This record gives sequence, structure tokens and C-alpha cells, in this order.
Amino acid sequence: MQEQPFVIQHLRSIIIHSLDTFNYTNAEFAGERLLAQDPEDLDSIYLYCLVLFHQKKYKTCYNRLINLEDHLGCSYLFGKSCLHLKKYKEGVYQLMKVNYLYNDSTLKPHQTSGFDVHHFSSSFNRFNYESNRNVLPDASGVYHLLGDLYNKTGDIKNSSLNYSYCLKFNQFDFEAFQNDKERLRSSLKRNNSNSNIHSNGESSGLVSEPGTIKSVFTSKEIESSESFLLQLYVVLARSYKCFSKYDCYKAIRILESLPEAEKNSPWVLSKLGRLHYEIVNYKQSEAFFVKLRMMDRTRLEDMEYYSTLLWHLHKKIELTYLANELFDLDSKNAITWCVIGNLFSLNREPDEAIKCFTKAVKFDENFSYAYTLKGHEYFGNDNYEMALENFRISLVIDPRHYNALYGIGMVYINLGDYQKADYHFRRAVSINPINIILICCVGMVLEKMGKKNLALRQYELANKLQPLNPLPIFKKAQLLFTMQQFQQSLQLFEVLKDLAPDEASVHFLLGQLYNIQDNKHQAIKEFTIALNLDPKGNYLIREAMESLQEKS
Amino acid sequence: MQEQPFVIQHLRSIIIHSLDTFNYTNAEFAGERLLAQDPEDLDSIYLYCLVLFHQKKYKTCYNRLINLEDHLGCSYLFGKSCLHLKKYKEGVYQLMKVNYLYNDSTLKPHQTSGFDVHHFSSSFNRFNYESNRNVLPDASGVYHLLGDLYNKTGDIKNSSLNYSYCLKFNQFDFEAFQNDKERLRSSLKRNNSNSNIHSNGESSGLVSEPGTIKSVFTSKEIESSESFLLQLYVVLARSYKCFSKYDCYKAIRILESLPEAEKNSPWVLSKLGRLHYEIVNYKQSEAFFVKLRMMDRTRLEDMEYYSTLLWHLHKKIELTYLANELFDLDSKNAITWCVIGNLFSLNREPDEAIKCFTKAVKFDENFSYAYTLKGHEYFGNDNYEMALENFRISLVIDPRHYNALYGIGMVYINLGDYQKADYHFRRAVSINPINIILICCVGMVLEKMGKKNLALRQYELANKLQPLNPLPIFKKAQLLFTMQQFQQSLQLFEVLKDLAPDEASVHFLLGQLYNIQDNKHQAIKEFTIALNLDPKGNYLIREAMESLQEKS
Repeated sequence: MQEQPFVIQHLRSIIIHSLDTFNYTNAEFAGERLLAQDPEDLDSIYLYCLVLFHQKKYKTCYNRLINLEDHLGCSYLFGKSCLHLKKYKEGVYQLMKVNYLYNDSTLKPHQTSGFDVHHFSSSFNRFNYESNRNVLPDASGVYHLLGDLYNKTGDIKNSSLNYSYCLKFNQFDFEAFQNDKERLRSSLKRNNSNSNIHSNGESSGLVSEPGTIKSVFTSKEIESSESFLLQLYVVLARSYKCFSKYDCYKAIRILESLPEAEKNSPWVLSKLGRLHYEIVNYKQSEAFFVKLRMMDRTRLEDMEYYSTLLWHLHKKIELTYLANELFDLDSKNAITWCVIGNLFSLNREPDEAIKCFTKAVKFDENFSYAYTLKGHEYFGNDNYEMALENFRISLVIDPRHYNALYGIGMVYINLGDYQKADYHFRRAVSINPINIILICCVGMVLEKMGKKNLALRQYELANKLQPLNPLPIFKKAQLLFTMQQFQQSLQLFEVLKDLAPDEASVHFLLGQLYNIQDNKHQAIKEFTIALNLDPKGNYLIREAMESLQEKS
Repeated sequence: MQEQPFVIQHLRSIIIHSLDTFNYTNAEFAGERLLAQDPEDLDSIYLYCLVLFHQKKYKTCYNRLINLEDHLGCSYLFGKSCLHLKKYKEGVYQLMKVNYLYNDSTLKPHQTSGFDVHHFSSSFNRFNYESNRNVLPDASGVYHLLGDLYNKTGDIKNSSLNYSYCLKFNQFDFEAFQNDKERLRSSLKRNNSNSNIHSNGESSGLVSEPGTIKSVFTSKEIESSESFLLQLYVVLARSYKCFSKYDCYKAIRILESLPEAEKNSPWVLSKLGRLHYEIVNYKQSEAFFVKLRMMDRTRLEDMEYYSTLLWHLHKKIELTYLANELFDLDSKNAITWCVIGNLFSLNREPDEAIKCFTKAVKFDENFSYAYTLKGHEYFGNDNYEMALENFRISLVIDPRHYNALYGIGMVYINLGDYQKADYHFRRAVSINPINIILICCVGMVLEKMGKKNLALRQYELANKLQPLNPLPIFKKAQLLFTMQQFQQSLQLFEVLKDLAPDEASVHFLLGQLYNIQDNKHQAIKEFTIALNLDPKGNYLIREAMESLQEKS
């Protein structure tokens, strides 16, 4: 075996080619032959485990890679396996142990034996990566993994730090940006304020390779393509940042400024759908989700939100189609069961809905939204104890899940504990400050506590945020009515009559206001409309009409 | 957007780098940006779908790739998606439609726009693949996929043909070789008979690129490393071929000739374990499986056979450990449930065992071995109808599954239909001609049909194949006893006494033979041993002893 290095290289190529064509059995077979050449060779062990990892054999990888000599690839795959096996701290420990292999301040050229872990950081190398790939991870990949591992341990600070390192080495790792819970990324802020991104990148500590081919060949075209892409990524990152802070109007404005083709991409459409949903622009939200579904009927992501939107819009047929299609697509998916649960909820079968949400959580134990929806079902069933429990689990998983805080507030209103209701609604508003439902909730609690003027201000704020939405106007008109400011109340109800002509309560209250003004003819007209809209015969309406006739 | 080609190349590199680090969210995000540049570009659609395919979004891939213009990558991924979605014929149709893109006889250079689909076929390019990868599939990958698709449609002839084309372009695709049901691979035969494989490869129609760098740089070292590897692959292929034909002794001899490191590789160990199992060398088989498990306790492959081996060896503790470990590893795997079923069977809980085998089949509907084991449980329960049904399903899935034929034969023996039993045992022997259990079964049926001399020949054949195995000797000795050839029978039982000293029936029959010879002292001794070994008091033994005493 005089030619062993050549045999090894030949096998490596066979393995990598098999990976590239998804031929994993063959890759594993060649991997065994590679290991038979030298069972202790770390590069061979790494490549063999890479094949195992592609086949999702995480436990096998973990067992093969534990307690090895230091090797960047092996440590990276070990960490990746730990991420899947929920051994987060063990993964962090191993990667920190080999920190000197990817930390640029300690890195000496001879330690990397020809392989440059910062390869992907330079514009030229990144541009040419397709023709110069490497099976070993680069520094950005390692820091990204550290970010993921810390994230799972709940160490948001170190998670954020490592994502920011990752972005330093690869500004195009949008996942690192999205996963970062702190999201105050200095490098992106800097890029944001400066359109000359490339030179900026250079100054932010990106490693350049002295004396390599790079400096000669980095062409103007590569620079300008990088600059173009960075600007695009920065715009998308800014919109995502606004979205994360529920600064929805700004996020929408940013996305609307994109070129048409970008606006029609699934990522942008899904964000626009969700943003309009958050600001209770249901019609607009629906339009974006419909467009997204037309592009890809097999999409699962975000469909939990779309199904809740359809629930709000009372669209049974659409929701039934969606639930059936997702069930056919993947009946073992958390989102699928969330959508089915919403369908049962819309059909007024809360017990079945609860079963579905429970099933959703079985498929994804960290699915906070399913817990929240389950909480709302229990609330609808007057089971406040279970409702609170589910809202609280949801908040443990995601402390920024304002919908769960809203649910808790609603429970406390019904229990008559207005202090606690107020606290939770205000916490919800602090997360999503422009959601008019939440603002109106704060107002409702203030009313209950007798603070009518403060409540009025909340309704006025909500009305200012969405002048055409009937909810704040109704709340304000109702409050003014109880404050006996009949003239102002009447004006608002006349506005509401146009915005929500099918709402019985609007006509009823209008009737009462006309009655107070002794305008009996108008009063009877409005009471009659109210009765027609609510034909089951609302006792209150009939009583009001009768008292009217008695008076006459 | 004057620099669009550069922006596109930049995005391609970002996507490929993300794929290389398993960062699929990021790859998909960049893929959307790539498509936004030009939604109709087939290379971009291919790369985007490659990202979806890595995420196992097969339906989405299928929808995106249907009815596109001809593009080798897109057609390949479409075919791959069809394979997963069980739309085999549609996959074949699409790949045959673009045949001109990879068939070397019709291929013209300008059609491939710089990309050579036969790239991987030349020694030099294959050797250097690691540093010169391509995201597009090469001809070997396409033919391999066609082999898989035809295989699933049941068209073994075309499947075999395409696997052989695949091997023409990539002699190191061992999966293509293993999957090929016909397995009469001309190229491997040729390689087998000729050690100068490289020049042989050249002559077998592999495309060489005229005037490229290859001819200059193909070094002696690359050639000899290729030659070394081909010889190794040929040896492994030969052993696999023998294994497939149940030519077990030859397969074992070939594997035993391998270098030590190769012999210790999982593939070889698992084959040796299974080969020794097939020839009823249970102890040796166990040793290989134990070694395999010591190397990798997370291994699932072949554990169904190991569990049946442990069943035969009555090793409850080992089987319990194995079942528990596999359940922890993957509770949704067919093999896991097969092993658990065997454990229940060993604990004499056939109804529970049947439930487990049914569950195994739910996770893998083509798992013929689970049907066979289920059949054996029903047989043990005297439910011959269900036993036959399960054995027959097993044979539909895999017509070479001799174990199911054995099961059918056993059912017919018990039903007294010796003609049908004979037919099925003989079919089983025609598949696995050196399994002594099957040969003894043929003998048993011959005995039942009164053909004692023919039966004797079967037992003698089995005895010749495995001289130290007590089963054929016992059968032969028993038959000779009934043929009143007492002296010959006695000789054999004396041999058996040493081979199986704990077998009560051996001592009982020996006692009877000594009695016939009027050697009462020896007869009483043997009867006593038999009674001690079978303390529950075998009625027959007691009766024989009493008649002995009466006579004296």
C-alpha cells in the first residue's frame, strides 16, 4: 500500500460524489473502505460521519465523535449531533474546547494545515465558492452552530454573541440574523447606515488573506454584485427587525419598496400576510396568503396563522380545504394539527379542537402558538384554570407571545380581577404596541375600574391607529353613551352605521339615542333593523321597542 | 441590474455554502432571492429545488418541476421526487424524455453548455472530484435513478440495464450493484477476470475528453490507486454475489481473504454474521454480530436477523437488551418492531409478537421478513390459514425469500399434504441449496411419503455439508432405527451422544438400541440419563424402563 494517500483521495472523491447525488448507501460503503485504510485518521472519520449525519444517524455520529483528538470538522458534526440529541451544553463544551481552531485571534496558519476557516469571509472566495467547495465547515458555520446551541440552553446573550460572530464571517447568513433573539446586530446597523457596504465589511474585522490570488482577481463586478446583494439583505433584515418588534406599518412600508419579483417571493408574501394580520387588516392579509398558496399549495410554514385568519373571517370552506390539503401533505406535522384544530373551533366543536392542539404539541413540543390556541378553546369552554395553564406554558416557550398575555387578561376580566387583567394587557401592549384589539382591552379594563376618561383615551388611540376599524369607534361610542354624552355618541354611531351596517348592537344603541332625543320615528326604524339582523328576537330590543310604544 | 450574472453567481455560492453546512433555512432564503433575479431560469429553479429536496419537501419539488423545459438537473430532481412520491412511471417518462441530455451516443458538446455529464467517468476527474464538484448530476447518477425507478415498477430487466449503464460511468457505485436484481454485471465480470482494470475501463466505452488537461496529468499514482480500489470493490462484489445466491461458504472464504481492517468494517462484519447464520453456524454468526454491536450500538441494519439468531439461541437477556436499545433509538422503525416481536415470541407470547410484526409492516410495507416471522407465529398458534397468507405476502414482496417457502412447507406437512410440502421445500432448497434445515425438511417429507432411501440420501447430503451439526445425524440415525438397521443407527447415536450430550431423545433411543442388543446394563444407564435430562418424567422413558425390568 505504497499509494495510500492516493487511495484515500480517490475514496474521498467517491464519497463526496455519492453525497452530491443523494446516494447515501454508496457513500457509507465507500466511507467504510476509507476508514479501513486508516481507522484513526480524523479527516476520514469526519467524512464518514458526514455521511451518517446526512442520513440523520445522529446517535451514531455522537458515539463515533465523542472523545476524539481535536479536529474542527469532527467537533462541528459532534455539536450538530448534540443539537439534535438535545445535549446542548455538551455541544457547546466541545466547540469551546477547539476554539483555537476557528478563533482568528489565536489562529496560526500551521494549525489549519492549508485549510482556511475564514475562507468564506472574503468576497472573492465567497463569490467563487461553487467552484471551490470545502467539506469542512468554515468559521461562520461553527459560530452559527454555537448560536443555535446557546439559544437552546436559554443563554440568549451568548447565543446573540455567536450569531453576531457568524454574521461577521458571513453577512449572508440570514438564518443567524433571524434566530438571534437580541437582534441588535451592530454589523447590520452599520451596513444599514452606509451604502458602501463592501469597504465597510473590510473594516469590520473580516480577515483578508495576504499575498493570495484574491487581491489580484477581486473584480469590480464581484464587488458591485456583493454590494447589491448586501443592500437587498439589509432591506429584508430591516423589515424583519421591524416585524419582530411588531413595528408593522414600518415593516410593510419597507417590504412594499422592494422590486416586484422580490415582493412575489414566498418569504416576502408570508411576511406581508402576517404583518397585515397583526394590524387586524384581515382582508389585505388574506390576499397575501391566497397569493402564497397559489404559488405553493404544499407550503406548511405560516399556515397556522392563515388558518386563524380564516377563523376570524368565518371562512369555513377555505379552512376545510386548507386542513384537508395539509393533512394529505403531512399528517404528522404540528402545523397541520393546528389548522385542523382551528377548523373544529370554527365549527363550534371545542373539545375536538383541544384534542387537535394537543396533538400538534406532541409533534412539536415547543410550538407556543398551539398552546395559546388551546388556551383560547378552554376559555371559550369557561375552563379558566386550564386556559391559564396553557397560556402560561406558551409564555414559558416564547415570552414575547403577546397573544397568550391577551388570553390571560381575558380570563382575569371574566374572573373580575381587573388589576391582573390590566397588568397582562399592558404587558401585551408593550410587546405589540399598535394592535388595536389589545389597546381596546386596556380601555375595557379601565372602564371596569371606573376610569372612564383614561379608557376613552385608549379608544381614541386605537381609533387614530386604524381610523376605519369599527371596534375602537364602537367602544368609544358605547362609553360616551354610558357617560351620557349622547350627542357625541350619536355622531359616532352614525359613522359606525356605515362602517358596520350589519351589526345589530349598533342599530340598537342608535335607536336608544334617537329615543333619548325624542326622535321616535328614527328610533323605531333602528330598533326594527336591529331586530331583523338578530332575528332570534333579542329580549332587550323588544323591551326597548315596547317601552317606546308605551311612552307614545 | 447590469451585473445580474455576477449577482446570480454570488447567490449560487451562498446557497451551495449553506447546503454544505446544513443551513437549509438560509439556503432557501437565498434561493428565493436567486429566483427573484430570473424566475424562469432553469439553473436557478434547479438549485432552489435542490434546497427543497434536501429538506425532504418532495411534493413541493414535484409541483415546481413538472412541465418545465428540458434541463438535466430539473429532470433528475423530478425523478428523485417521483421515487419518493411513488410516481415511478412518471419519473421514468420524464428522464426518458431528456435522454438526449445524458446518452453519450446522441450527446453533442454544444447541448451540454460546458457541463460534461460524463465527467465522473474518467479516472482523473473522479480522483479530483473533491476539488471540482458539480451541483448537477452526472450520467451515472441519472442511470442509477432510472434503475431505482424501474426497480420499483417491477421492471427488473430495464432496472438491471440502467444499473449496468450506471456502473459503466461509475464503477464505484456499489449501491447500483447491490440493487440490481439480475446481478449478472458484465463490466464487473470483465474487471474480475482482468487485473489491469484501468485500461479495461477505457475500452468499455468510457468517454475521454480530447485535448483537456486530463491526458497530461493522469499520473501513475492515480491509475494505480484506481486499480487497487477496483480490485477491492470486485472482491466485495464477488462475495455479495455469492451471498445473494446463498453460496455461503464461498462468500465467507472471499471475505476471510480480505485485509484485517476491511474484515472489521461494518459491511463485512454484517455479511459474515448473516452468512454464518444462513449455514446454521449460530455460534460463529453470534460472534460477528456481537463484534458489530460493539462497534456501533446504534446500528439498526441487519438487527432483525440478529434478533432471530438470539431467538434460536434462546438468549433472552441479550434479546431484551437489543429490543430496548433499538426502541430507545428509533421507536418508529420496522426493524425495531421486528426485534421486539421476536422477544415476545421467545417469551411465548405469540399474540403480542404478531401485533409487533404488524406494527413493523406499518412502518415499512415492503418488509417481507416481518411477514415471514408473523407467519411463523401464526403457525405456532396452529392458525394455518393466516400463516399461509403471511408467507404468501412475503413471497410477493420478495420471491427469493426462502424462509417463507419453508414456512409454507411446514404448514402443508402439518396438514398432511406431503406433495405440496415437498414442492415448497424443494423450491426453498433451489434458492438456498446448502441450508441443512431445508434439506432435512425435504428428507422428512420423503419419509412421510414412505421413500425412506431417498430420505436417507437427503440426510447424508446435509451431514456432508455440515459434518458436526447433530440435526442430520439425528434424522439419519432415527430413520435407520425405523429401518431396523440397528447397528448403523447405534454407531450414529454414539456419535450424537458426544455432539449433543444434553439431548434426552438421543439417550432414549440409545437405550432402546442397547436393549435390542440385550445390553441391559447400558440400556438402563441411558434411560436413566434421559429421565434426568427430562425430569418432568417422560411417559415413554418410564414405560421403556419398566418393560426392561419386566423382561429381566
